[in-house]
Amino acid sequence: MNDAANKANAEQRPMFDHVALIGLGLIGSSLAHVMRRENLAGHIAGATRSEPTLKRAGELGLCDSYHLDAAEAVKGADLVFLNVPVGAMGPVAERIAGALKPGAILTDVGSVKGSVIRDVSPHVPEGVHFIPGHPIAGTEQSGPDAGFAELFENRWCILTPLENTDEGALERLIAFWEATGAHVDTMAAEHHDLVLGITSHLPHLIAYNIVATAADLEDVTESEVIKYSAGGFRDFTRLAASDPVMWRDVFLNNREAVLELLGRFMEDLSALQRAIRWGEGEKLYELFKRSRRIRREIIEAGQDTPAPGFGRR
Amino acid sequence: MNDAANKANAEQRPMFDHVALIGLGLIGSSLAHVMRRENLAGHIAGATRSEPTLKRAGELGLCDSYHLDAAEAVKGADLVFLNVPVGAMGPVAERIAGALKPGAILTDVGSVKGSVIRDVSPHVPEGVHFIPGHPIAGTEQSGPDAGFAELFENRWCILTPLENTDEGALERLIAFWEATGAHVDTMAAEHHDLVLGITSHLPHLIAYNIVATAADLEDVTESEVIKYSAGGFRDFTRLAASDPVMWRDVFLNNREAVLELLGRFMEDLSALQRAIRWGEGEKLYELFKRSRRIRREIIEAGQDTPAPGFGRR
Repeated sequence: MNDAANKANAEQRPMFDHVALIGLGLIGSSLAHVMRRENLAGHIAGATRSEPTLKRAGELGLCDSYHLDAAEAVKGADLVFLNVPVGAMGPVAERIAGALKPGAILTDVGSVKGSVIRDVSPHVPEGVHFIPGHPIAGTEQSGPDAGFAELFENRWCILTPLENTDEGALERLIAFWEATGAHVDTMAAEHHDLVLGITSHLPHLIAYNIVATAADLEDVTESEVIKYSAGGFRDFTRLAASDPVMWRDVFLNNREAVLELLGRFMEDLSALQRAIRWGEGEKLYELFKRSRRIRREIIEAGQDTPAPGFGRR
Repeated sequence: MNDAANKANAEQRPMFDHVALIGLGLIGSSLAHVMRRENLAGHIAGATRSEPTLKRAGELGLCDSYHLDAAEAVKGADLVFLNVPVGAMGPVAERIAGALKPGAILTDVGSVKGSVIRDVSPHVPEGVHFIPGHPIAGTEQSGPDAGFAELFENRWCILTPLENTDEGALERLIAFWEATGAHVDTMAAEHHDLVLGITSHLPHLIAYNIVATAADLEDVTESEVIKYSAGGFRDFTRLAASDPVMWRDVFLNNREAVLELLGRFMEDLSALQRAIRWGEGEKLYELFKRSRRIRREIIEAGQDTPAPGFGRR
């Protein structure tokens, strides 16, 4: 076939014949939506252990087949996504291992990569291409209703290929993610876990913590905290409304990086505390001033809206 | 006059004949916009020390008269707003004191109330009604271009009247704020400073701090922090992009409350740190789970959008 014929063929055939989604929460359901829109899968097999979730996914028409048993869903699949909390990756991999098709690509969307490699790798059969991944995209909402096809658009997806990763399989997975609208980077798992530690895990930890601090005050009522939350507090409650199981697993599984970053955060906070106590205005001003540039660069990089207050209404 | 005649009269006449805005940043310019829309001022006198800001305010047509000297602006004013950083409240009050009209209402929009009362009260002439205030509304943007008429809509405005505050003057100021679309609460200044400490000052401090921690890492580049900021970090950069002079002054002037709240925050964070170090999953889960309720209540109270990711695009 010449290039033109190849292209015509590609336009008719889906990118993958059979894709299995293990887990149908925010990420799993968003993958289902974008695969439909972009013709990325001939057949979408969906699996979740929760009967109500599976039923709801069926009502939404997310998949072509529905399975309570993940091993059933992966039979014959060319591409398998593990979309479960990182603490569940190992058990799920063990469960599906025997049913994986030789030549299949096995990937995941977990927020920690070192622990997923540690937990999943031992179960991956010879001939199956395991390529860990993580789309840096999400909202505070969870479950099969939360997904939408645009979730990955203009967001980054990080892949952390292992040493012996098959180049062809890697290229196919990159093409998949690019078709969702994402940009793809590859890096070492350890570096991923440090980078995401600062851009995602520590921010969520801090958000959960300040909500707890506010809830536990004796001299300020919860109703006051809620009424006057537009002063800034409300922003933190969005991150702190994220899925508690997912985040418990992140902190348990990226312990070293999170503790290291938390230590630095607390050191910096102690310095700020001291500057406030001693009335060091110039130091506070210099520190506050430089944050504006980082905000501007995030907006220029297309990673947030320039609209004031996130453009919220 | 009967009630109907009173009402007809009120519909024609502005609520105040002459309002002076000292400071034309986000709050000052928003006040100008909403006063025009709601016919709250017969004449708006605007003052700012900065010539470029005054010129820009003129180009935007925010006011009816423009003054570099605040004392000029307040001459003949029935209502005077101090919209300057809390550290500048005392000097500005001193400057305008001799020019204030007997019977005028003098108020402010500062984020700290104890220090404003301490710094402004000594300069308030007999017969002028000083009523400290604070609208819990804002965006991360500053300057005369940042204002808009809807800023105060459905937000709370807290007034902290002094012991001898004139009831009539208080009622007139409450009516003014309600006309902007705000709800009004009154409370003691000390309580305000504690409540806002948790709903506004501590969140901003934490946001500034995490941006600093991220910027100072050696093993993660700034470009990585920016690229992957959609994992959560970007939310904090919005608060940390707020006006550095305003925030320096807040921390210098609400020191006791902020240090007390910061101490509690750090204690809670140490407990979280320990739970992560010791792998206490159940403790993390319980803590994370309860934040969702507070988010939901903030949304139900109309203080944030239910749209995922703040509805940002």
